[in-house]
Amino acid sequence: RSVAHVATGEAKAGEQGILHAAAARGWPVVTHPTDVLATVDVPNPSRIVHAAVGTPSVAEAAALVDGGDLLVPKRTLSGSRPSMATVAVARRPVRGRLALVSTGPGDDRLLPDLARSTLASAEVVVGLDQYVDRVRGFLRPGTEILPSRIGDEIARAETAIVAAREGRSVALLSGGDVGIYAMGSPALERAGEDIDVVVVPGVTAAAAAAALLGSPLGHDHCAISLSDLLTPWQVIRRRIKAAAEGDFVVSFYNPRSRGRHWQLDEARALLSEHRKPETPVGVVTDAYRPGQRVRTTTLGDLDPSVVDMLTIVLVGNSQTRMIGGRMCTPRGYM
Amino acid sequence: RSVAHVATGEAKAGEQGILHAAAARGWPVVTHPTDVLATVDVPNPSRIVHAAVGTPSVAEAAALVDGGDLLVPKRTLSGSRPSMATVAVARRPVRGRLALVSTGPGDDRLLPDLARSTLASAEVVVGLDQYVDRVRGFLRPGTEILPSRIGDEIARAETAIVAAREGRSVALLSGGDVGIYAMGSPALERAGEDIDVVVVPGVTAAAAAAALLGSPLGHDHCAISLSDLLTPWQVIRRRIKAAAEGDFVVSFYNPRSRGRHWQLDEARALLSEHRKPETPVGVVTDAYRPGQRVRTTTLGDLDPSVVDMLTIVLVGNSQTRMIGGRMCTPRGYM
Repeated sequence: RSVAHVATGEAKAGEQGILHAAAARGWPVVTHPTDVLATVDVPNPSRIVHAAVGTPSVAEAAALVDGGDLLVPKRTLSGSRPSMATVAVARRPVRGRLALVSTGPGDDRLLPDLARSTLASAEVVVGLDQYVDRVRGFLRPGTEILPSRIGDEIARAETAIVAAREGRSVALLSGGDVGIYAMGSPALERAGEDIDVVVVPGVTAAAAAAALLGSPLGHDHCAISLSDLLTPWQVIRRRIKAAAEGDFVVSFYNPRSRGRHWQLDEARALLSEHRKPETPVGVVTDAYRPGQRVRTTTLGDLDPSVVDMLTIVLVGNSQTRMIGGRMCTPRGYM
Repeated sequence: RSVAHVATGEAKAGEQGILHAAAARGWPVVTHPTDVLATVDVPNPSRIVHAAVGTPSVAEAAALVDGGDLLVPKRTLSGSRPSMATVAVARRPVRGRLALVSTGPGDDRLLPDLARSTLASAEVVVGLDQYVDRVRGFLRPGTEILPSRIGDEIARAETAIVAAREGRSVALLSGGDVGIYAMGSPALERAGEDIDVVVVPGVTAAAAAAALLGSPLGHDHCAISLSDLLTPWQVIRRRIKAAAEGDFVVSFYNPRSRGRHWQLDEARALLSEHRKPETPVGVVTDAYRPGQRVRTTTLGDLDPSVVDMLTIVLVGNSQTRMIGGRMCTPRGYM
């Protein structure tokens, strides 16, 4: 069933010919006020119609009042003079679709089918080169890839939304989970109700790092980004103190970059006010990617120089222990 | 190359025939002290050998000293009297393998290939019926499924570890991510270095719920279990207060069950000391499973009666907003 509805002017709301024809086919009937129809821009306006009913078009205007494309310009029923019926056909505007796709840590074996099928149905893909490269094999030939610049996340979100508003099916990519320190929020802050949005969850960077270390996230845990580009350091600092007081296992995202080196030291100092120097710490760089490095150390011995932007630093809680070489946070406090 | 090494007694450490034969084939040579060999239980001990070298067996004892199965009992080189060489062949003990497998929210489309291939290579599967049912289609015919009782997680972990210690390849299943409030920690607390352990990460319950709500986890967030079975309520309470003070987005796991109903009310009251009643709250039950229910409400209007054990309750931070019907936590505080 590809007919959404039959539309006409409100003056025809009781027209039995229209009502019966629509009812016989199961089509709803929608009517529009004359003054609304009069404002619709149509290809074939008529002075005669305007003089008769107060709008230069009924059929084409009713077909196009919600936007869309006119497939069949108005035509009249042949064989009768004056014509007994006029009809026009429009295709309603296609509702754009924005899929926010988590590409996970980077290993195809951790990319679920839902992400793959979503990528395969995308007409347009937006994402940093490194994420596009990961998923290129899952795209259909002819998929348009829109360029993105590193750092400019708002522009990237807007590029994707503009394409979706054109009625296209767009996939916007992030590493890890798209909803966690990634493109999800910048996109959803700008996407309105005029496009459909689907979020495809993935394996988070913290879950990937944790799996390589053992089970450090076995009890209550939190994630804190040490990037102070968008968040004042005082807010981050307060959060680290709260995590320390609450004895949360902590996953530090964006722990260090070329321009930011003292934040991890301060974070360690804040945690050390509540945790022993022997607290196990896991340092995982490029989890499930070429060059993966998995280290375990302690809060006292953590060497920030082995940490970079692609590292997750996982600090255990008061109960976390190394058991058989694996970092393990018990499920309880008994 | 399936030969691990050539083993003999230390008295033969300089025996050129053995050294040359091994070197020509690239096999390492390992020697054992006579008194160690004398303690090994062998099928064919010899009084003559014992009288000559001080142990009733050299070849079989050296083959079996690290355990394993004797494939070829000792045999002597024929054609010479006395025999110039005696040899026995043992298969070394197989190192057991325990795979901790995340089965995700429950939808096959969110189960990555790494989980599927791990399940396909398992000889033994241990897990609650509900998780075994999810993955049955990925198991090889003949895979042994060991029964598990609900609630008895330690027994389940031990069942899996005992099977792995027998040298088998075992998969222990959890819903969501196996490392998060699941079987990972109970298993790793009990597994020693004598078995290989691999952890297969998955889509966490929080990430799945978040994807259905929008991007509530876009900034710093924490997970808190409201189950006080293994953790005193005072610890949980302190953690909720810390999460409130730190303005973390909070994912509540195990928020309510038949026997526990007041905890969620108290958690809400604690968060309300720091957050406005209008703070968006997402309530997701059976995410990506039949009967999935996704609701959004506010901290002030949250109705605990719609929450059960299979629900994740996601409480926004001070910046979280509903935008276009979607729950969105901005990435910054600017």
